[in-house]
Amino acid sequence: MAAVKACNILITGANRGLGLETVKQLTEDSCPKRHIFATCRDPEGPKSEALRELVKKHPGVITIIRLDADDPSSIKESAKKVGSLLGNSGLNLLVNNAGIVARGTIQTSSAENMKNTFSTNVIGPLLIIKEYLPYLQTAAKASGTPGMSCNKAAVINISTVGGSISTMPSLFSQFPVLPYCVSKAGFNMLTVLAADELRADKILCMALHSGWVKTELRREKALHFFPHSELQGGDVLRNVN
Amino acid sequence: MAAVKACNILITGANRGLGLETVKQLTEDSCPKRHIFATCRDPEGPKSEALRELVKKHPGVITIIRLDADDPSSIKESAKKVGSLLGNSGLNLLVNNAGIVARGTIQTSSAENMKNTFSTNVIGPLLIIKEYLPYLQTAAKASGTPGMSCNKAAVINISTVGGSISTMPSLFSQFPVLPYCVSKAGFNMLTVLAADELRADKILCMALHSGWVKTELRREKALHFFPHSELQGGDVLRNVN
Ligand SMILES: NC(=O)c1ccc[n+]([C@@H]2O[C@H](COP(=O)([O-])OP(=O)(O)OC[C@H]3O[C@@H](n4cnc5c(N)ncnc54)[C@H](OP(=O)(O)O)[C@@H]3O)[C@@H](O)[C@H]2O)c1
Ligand SMILES: NC(=O)c1ccc[n+]([C@@H]2O[C@H](COP(=O)([O-])OP(=O)(O)OC[C@H]3O[C@@H](n4cnc5c(N)ncnc54)[C@H](OP(=O)(O)O)[C@@H]3O)[C@@H](O)[C@H]2O)c1
Repeated sequence: MAAVKACNILITGANRGLGLETVKQLTEDSCPKRHIFATCRDPEGPKSEALRELVKKHPGVITIIRLDADDPSSIKESAKKVGSLLGNSGLNLLVNNAGIVARGTIQTSSAENMKNTFSTNVIGPLLIIKEYLPYLQTAAKASGTPGMSCNKAAVINISTVGGSISTMPSLFSQFPVLPYCVSKAGFNMLTVLAADELRADKILCMALHSGWVKTELRREKALHFFPHSELQGGDVLRNVN
Repeated sequence: MAAVKACNILITGANRGLGLETVKQLTEDSCPKRHIFATCRDPEGPKSEALRELVKKHPGVITIIRLDADDPSSIKESAKKVGSLLGNSGLNLLVNNAGIVARGTIQTSSAENMKNTFSTNVIGPLLIIKEYLPYLQTAAKASGTPGMSCNKAAVINISTVGGSISTMPSLFSQFPVLPYCVSKAGFNMLTVLAADELRADKILCMALHSGWVKTELRREKALHFFPHSELQGGDVLRNVN
């Protein structure tokens, strides 16, 4: 994570899995002006305990913000709160990490699972980019450096090779999560269109496959076939600069 | 359309645009045992008048069936009805043609439009394939010929290059329909996964870009930038065999 020099960073789904690990690694960096908005849907709940502990360990560095990717009004509210905390500063890095998986094939996928994965994995990130765009624009304008970089103003969408149309069919028998794959293919399209649209503002936008990491998302039955790294070894933003 | 020898064919969104034109061309073929299930969401409504006229012109060849791609119970009901009409025969060709477009960019797309396009363009076809699968399996089994063909048992998903992640960004400024593109990218993923799953039953499954044709779907403002063929010249299944 040492390559990431961004000051103000927001990450969704920051209470566990890759999101929590990303926050951890970002706080360990020697980046004095860094502030992390660690968002999750239930800041007070038991699933956010590890995140609350992390905040205590790094006072003043992390602010926990409620953001449910499946609830447009919570996204709007979170952006207002973050905006007031940022003041005149911009947001340098927005990491759309929150995501859900749902299993299924053509014959077993339900309309409900299709809707839910699409809502959390695609519509949520769209609305989040939309609401946070003014702060990203502020960061891009304030930066003295030309070009695009995740240290200046960027959106990183945590996607997966499971959303790759050329890669997925060969993996599907071991990873039968059609609603997830369909949503992530849509998410990849969203990302390329966002990259195109935000380029004018010199805001970088890209999708990232995290590699296979053993989190709750992959603790599902039938998701154990892949070689994976233990979370400790994962450095999800290693290749971003 | 002369290459298409399939007997029992079902097509969604058959009351206007490419769907209606496909039905027209299929009835003009000299294929004596052909029967077409022309489905639409409002068989009695004014938008289905041209289809009703066509039925009168070709008595016994076309049956109109109500099917709303956005309504799972109507999909189920349609399948029951078609099943009872097919009797012991199978369905040779299922054409998922019904689709809607919605305009928007990252900054202007609404959650509502994202949901609606995904529901009609992706969840609908998934449920349709699921419900009609037994009839496609019957057709595949009944056929004496080896391999896969749209004359034996096949699903044709009418997609678009607007759903192609490598093609779309360069077209987007002239065709700013993000919810549509995201849904069609998901639809393409659905298609490759369906192709993989249905291969075991020797059912062909593929996506088809129809070319740019001047239908209502493309009568929207800002959709006029492309060279397009008039509908009369369009032969959407020309390359399918
Ligand atoms: N693990 C892998 O091998 C792998 C591979 C490729 C890509 N990815 C991607 O990496 C991202 C993180 O996955 P992970 O493996 O860390 O999964 P995880 O351990 O299951 O964590 C998922 C995170 O997303 C949050 N989340 C789910 N729905 C949410 C919503 N509506 N609003 C806000 N937050 C929500 C969860 O919060 P709650 O605690 O509230 O549920 C949790 O913090 C996902 O986008 C996933 O697709 C993972
Ligand atoms: N035209 C092009 O240039 C072009 C290019 C690439 C791909 N395509 C694809 O071709 C397909 C047909 O498009 P088109 O150009 O013929 O569009 P169109 O003229 O607008 O016709 C769309 C058809 O879909 C039906 N439909 C919409 N929502 C439905 C629902 N919920 N249930 C059942 N039927 C529904 C419409 O029925 P109602 O009358 O009830 O609305 C109509 O019959 C679409 O999938 C489109 O994405 C078109």
